[in-house]
Amino acid sequence: MKTQIGYFASLEQYRPMDALEQAIRAEKVGFDSVWVDDHFHPWYHDNAQSAQAWAWMGAALQATKKVFISTCITCPIMRYNPAIVAQTFATLRQMYPGRVGVAVGAGEAMNEVPVTGEWPSVPVRQDMTVEAVKVMRMLWESDKPVTFKGDYFTLDKAFLYTKPDDEVPLYFSGMGPKGAKLAGMYGDHLMTVAAAPSTLKNVTIPKFEEGAREAGKDPSKMEHAMLIWYSVDPDYDKAVEALRFWAGCLVPSMFKYKVYDPKEVQLHANLVHCDTIKENYMCATDAEEMIKEIERFKEAGINHFCLGNSSPDVNFGIDIFKEVIPAVRD
Amino acid sequence: MKTQIGYFASLEQYRPMDALEQAIRAEKVGFDSVWVDDHFHPWYHDNAQSAQAWAWMGAALQATKKVFISTCITCPIMRYNPAIVAQTFATLRQMYPGRVGVAVGAGEAMNEVPVTGEWPSVPVRQDMTVEAVKVMRMLWESDKPVTFKGDYFTLDKAFLYTKPDDEVPLYFSGMGPKGAKLAGMYGDHLMTVAAAPSTLKNVTIPKFEEGAREAGKDPSKMEHAMLIWYSVDPDYDKAVEALRFWAGCLVPSMFKYKVYDPKEVQLHANLVHCDTIKENYMCATDAEEMIKEIERFKEAGINHFCLGNSSPDVNFGIDIFKEVIPAVRD
Repeated sequence: MKTQIGYFASLEQYRPMDALEQAIRAEKVGFDSVWVDDHFHPWYHDNAQSAQAWAWMGAALQATKKVFISTCITCPIMRYNPAIVAQTFATLRQMYPGRVGVAVGAGEAMNEVPVTGEWPSVPVRQDMTVEAVKVMRMLWESDKPVTFKGDYFTLDKAFLYTKPDDEVPLYFSGMGPKGAKLAGMYGDHLMTVAAAPSTLKNVTIPKFEEGAREAGKDPSKMEHAMLIWYSVDPDYDKAVEALRFWAGCLVPSMFKYKVYDPKEVQLHANLVHCDTIKENYMCATDAEEMIKEIERFKEAGINHFCLGNSSPDVNFGIDIFKEVIPAVRD
Repeated sequence: MKTQIGYFASLEQYRPMDALEQAIRAEKVGFDSVWVDDHFHPWYHDNAQSAQAWAWMGAALQATKKVFISTCITCPIMRYNPAIVAQTFATLRQMYPGRVGVAVGAGEAMNEVPVTGEWPSVPVRQDMTVEAVKVMRMLWESDKPVTFKGDYFTLDKAFLYTKPDDEVPLYFSGMGPKGAKLAGMYGDHLMTVAAAPSTLKNVTIPKFEEGAREAGKDPSKMEHAMLIWYSVDPDYDKAVEALRFWAGCLVPSMFKYKVYDPKEVQLHANLVHCDTIKENYMCATDAEEMIKEIERFKEAGINHFCLGNSSPDVNFGIDIFKEVIPAVRD
């Protein structure tokens, strides 16, 4: 499967219009895809944003020409009704044929608790996500009204009147072994986030492929996508520090417990050692180093990169890919 | 207050990209605003569509230059979480300053039952809508996290990180006396739908103004907007019949009972007498007749028209407004 290089335009880190400009620039530079975070609260507080992803995607698709755009990652189980997620991405894909996808996952407290007050356990949310994907696929695929009474979601003679000619590719988010297996069973493709190459190689991808085979699918036709943040700047230390915005993602307790106040997340992000940032994210001073970083993860089995640009100079961080993309494409 | 002429680009009647082309054309012809239906199921079955309005609005705002765009009408209480409605329209208004509004209402069965299975009574839904608007305004206005435990909705340290510089104008939908009064109390403007001039003059607008005054607001600063469908064609009977798609809205039982299957709605739409269509919607053969129809409702107090174009030739139905708009502007 050929390697695809995608650009992650963050609505948490940048104002939505600035993220739109980045998407336009990324398409021109040659990125294969654009990805956008689907959040209510951001992973940092100071100078953060948190625009709504669907409305932004309509604008971004209209503002660009042919690049594929997907969310990364939409939680379809609490603040969103999965039938409305299905309706939205079917609408966008009918409007922009072949250019729209969705990535789904069991969610993060910071996006569900503030507006629902609830935060079920990981197993329950994984269960809900599987049922939500079932609801979405029934609506996408059915040519007549669907009635469904699930454990969590209900459809009563529901029918999508606006559908694309083909189906919306669904990336299923999987981090741990169970999540990766569910991704293989219920997703079209894997979406994982900033995992170490060894974990990808020995756990995430094998589990994903195991799930795919169990569901009777051919893993070789299913992408291994990964969201990871990068920062490139001639001043290496400056590049590393510019990734601070995303350091909260490296603190396990931010996922394990019901943490949903960005100020609390920022507190932890600011404690993370620079070495931890260097190990987990892509830091580089030039194109050559960037290429090496990407190769590191290519070897671990990633073939679709969703690269979150946290460079001190954002445009520098995009334009450098004029050199990087041709080098990392097979 | 000056009269504004808005164009209602229907996502139920047209494919979303066709509705987008209409919006672009309407702006060029001189319409003051563009409105879009926010539905899950449509008011008719054959050849109907039902695209998701928010994603479409992002694309439409990006595709047009300065026209104001709003939904007409968003139900923020069941299939949508009101905090996400607030996030979405704050995002769009930050991206397109001064150009974005939202109209809210207590909903229609066809949009909530298919994806939630529930359909509370009118008074309960009106109550829910008032609380939803409270949630939306708290999020729009607060400069710090909001915690709120209402009868229906919860906020827990919720904060909108992406906000416009000014507030999103909120049109509150009111049809009957109670609804109109609630619109005055909790809305910035009134949004009503295809009411007879006498009802507007004697009930809807007085009740709206009564509610506004009770809430300490100046009614003279609040618009009276109305959604109404029109059809213009040299062949009058052809024009009338082309409104058949929307005839279901003229059948009271479609609102009174839990009707949510578009096939059932269509059955009733097809029973409606042409005279009933003529009385309730705007039918004309040329610009002059169209101007008279608009004047009829201007005299009844409507000063912002959201005109749903159901003309046999859609472009003819738009272009005729080059003549109509200058004539009906004060």
